[in-house]
Amino acid sequence: MSVAIVGAGPGDPGLITVRALELVQQCEVLVYDRLVSPELVAKAVGAVRIARDNLTQDEVNHALVHHGRLGRRVVRLKGGDPFLFGRGSEEVEALAAAGVRYEVVPGVSTLTAVPGLAGIPLTARGVAAQLTVVTGTSADGGDLDYAQLAGTPGTLVVFMGLRRLETVADNLILAGRAVDEPAAVVSRLSLPDAETRIGTLATIAGVARGMQTPAVVIVGHVVSHVHPARLAAAMPPLRS
Amino acid sequence: MSVAIVGAGPGDPGLITVRALELVQQCEVLVYDRLVSPELVAKAVGAVRIARDNLTQDEVNHALVHHGRLGRRVVRLKGGDPFLFGRGSEEVEALAAAGVRYEVVPGVSTLTAVPGLAGIPLTARGVAAQLTVVTGTSADGGDLDYAQLAGTPGTLVVFMGLRRLETVADNLILAGRAVDEPAAVVSRLSLPDAETRIGTLATIAGVARGMQTPAVVIVGHVVSHVHPARLAAAMPPLRS
Repeated sequence: MSVAIVGAGPGDPGLITVRALELVQQCEVLVYDRLVSPELVAKAVGAVRIARDNLTQDEVNHALVHHGRLGRRVVRLKGGDPFLFGRGSEEVEALAAAGVRYEVVPGVSTLTAVPGLAGIPLTARGVAAQLTVVTGTSADGGDLDYAQLAGTPGTLVVFMGLRRLETVADNLILAGRAVDEPAAVVSRLSLPDAETRIGTLATIAGVARGMQTPAVVIVGHVVSHVHPARLAAAMPPLRS
Repeated sequence: MSVAIVGAGPGDPGLITVRALELVQQCEVLVYDRLVSPELVAKAVGAVRIARDNLTQDEVNHALVHHGRLGRRVVRLKGGDPFLFGRGSEEVEALAAAGVRYEVVPGVSTLTAVPGLAGIPLTARGVAAQLTVVTGTSADGGDLDYAQLAGTPGTLVVFMGLRRLETVADNLILAGRAVDEPAAVVSRLSLPDAETRIGTLATIAGVARGMQTPAVVIVGHVVSHVHPARLAAAMPPLRS
């Protein structure tokens, strides 16, 4: 395959997959997201390294197609997983349309890292049997349907929800969700400066003020089931 | 840390994380799930290897606590991610209750691997902005709430849904979901014998007859948005 769309995991460089690291080490062109660990970018020893920040999505697509057509080993390294709200499909579609062969290497999503690293279960027996995930930005289909979300049982996870947290919380309450429903913000998960703050739908926007991105918002009674010992034990960086 | 609860990824041994592989290679006791690749189990060169199949959950918990207390380097290697419907929390709670220190290493969940490897987006602009995940077994909180699920917009993913697929599909239809809503079953994702079959809620149980576990069921209009080229390109094993 000449172009690989690769997930880098939630932030800790140890959480990239073995296959993804192999591809990064061997690539000739690396296009990487701002949120990818500099330690991983440095593994692309012989590569031309292109920061995605400075490019529009069209320019990213064009770069992947261009270098792919030339037969170069290209890696597009994205934070978390490339597809779970990672917009990997736009890049894959551009490659498919241009007839460039590609490979996808899924990554550890921040979503799946929340229970183990922040100690918040996403489902729990007798508490939440159902998990709903949306994105806080409008990139995936316009504004959120708050009436539906408020009525959906179980746990609600809002990706990239920090910046619009006040709007999201207010709208959930207006649509009928309880003001005292537990809510949490988990910031920079798996990194040394990871942080979890807990409040209610009414208080969480204030509680979370000043937290850093990337961050994920969790709404639901599972938030009350954080094991304090678990939280403490799970939060130090993975490298000892 | 003496006990590590580790996700092995969806099946392809290359989809384990770098940190997880390090822990497996260095461990003294390995307790592994049936679904974990034999290639990964073989990496625990110097370890006592215990197959989880032959044990009850209580016996697994006991083994982790026992070897952990003795200060041994223990790895509990689980398919996919340990927590996203992986019941890792029961083991973590047993360790916390016993005062044994532990570390969690999240893994690539089958959920996040679906879009990249099976070519089915889970959300897509104008098609589905919301993703809901449940388990097809009753392990996570009794029977499914079909009335709620039928009314929830967006994409529905049912983990471990193959065995009860007819029941799930019938109940979604009875609760009001359209008989011709697209549905897919993705089996053994990331493995050489991975397979995706597509039908509708009315036909999927028949279409999926004979498929192998582990399998995940996807219900929603995103299933119609599979790119055929993408499906073909993404399905060969990751190791070339």
